[in-house]
Amino acid sequence: MKARRVLETCLYVDDLEAAERFYVDVLGLTLVTRRPGRHVFLRCGQQMVLLFDPLACQSVEGEIPPHGARGPGHVAFAAGNADLPNWRERLSGFGIPIERLITWPGGGQSLYLRDPAGNSLEFASPRIWGWNEDPAPTASDSVP
Amino acid sequence: MKARRVLETCLYVDDLEAAERFYVDVLGLTLVTRRPGRHVFLRCGQQMVLLFDPLACQSVEGEIPPHGARGPGHVAFAAGNADLPNWRERLSGFGIPIERLITWPGGGQSLYLRDPAGNSLEFASPRIWGWNEDPAPTASDSVP
Repeated sequence: MKARRVLETCLYVDDLEAAERFYVDVLGLTLVTRRPGRHVFLRCGQQMVLLFDPLACQSVEGEIPPHGARGPGHVAFAAGNADLPNWRERLSGFGIPIERLITWPGGGQSLYLRDPAGNSLEFASPRIWGWNEDPAPTASDSVP
Repeated sequence: MKARRVLETCLYVDDLEAAERFYVDVLGLTLVTRRPGRHVFLRCGQQMVLLFDPLACQSVEGEIPPHGARGPGHVAFAAGNADLPNWRERLSGFGIPIERLITWPGGGQSLYLRDPAGNSLEFASPRIWGWNEDPAPTASDSVP
């Protein structure tokens, strides 16, 4: 018996509105729901990216078990090596610096940037883990 | 242009060895690599779960942009509603308390527990986000 896949990935941000603009407008995630002052929930493929104000989700009064971290977290998004130049161009168009570009021994590449809260984000080829790159997206990818 | 899926999800832990035992033995993730005192990298389906000692990955001296958070983070793993009783039984067998079991308005359920570092983990049906449950695993799921 084993956990089969990650459904929700979580990051903490100090400014939910700035984070929502960044993740929707720049990274292209889909807004699912928001609660001002507490969270912004976004869809990325078959997964959710949950952005929380760490102070608001540490409350033990609600139904959800409390959590909430301080300091920069990290999430990587899959992007083929061929997509990375497009991401560089797109990020540059938004004035977002590329913090680092690493070519790994196995041939995959990683592009690092920061979200507005300072979290470390990465676009990386699945090849960095020894896997094949993802197939090109199809229309059915948007149907859960 | 949009980020298509999450490749790496990250949590911070104070005891990497305890975390490795928990994520491998209890949750069934696959150990990919470890660096004692710094990280344990695990595979979960087509994604990676990265566990870091937050002090060790905050260093600005290495090649990787620094990150590292303190306080309980959160990750959810996909599990069908029919799988949740099996997870309850399994966790009980390891003496791991179920912190909360929530049935959502849309019909999906969430089961909450803590990892040894206190991170909030969840097994949840994709139905909680309005999606179909995942198809049953096949042998090809283990081939990247």
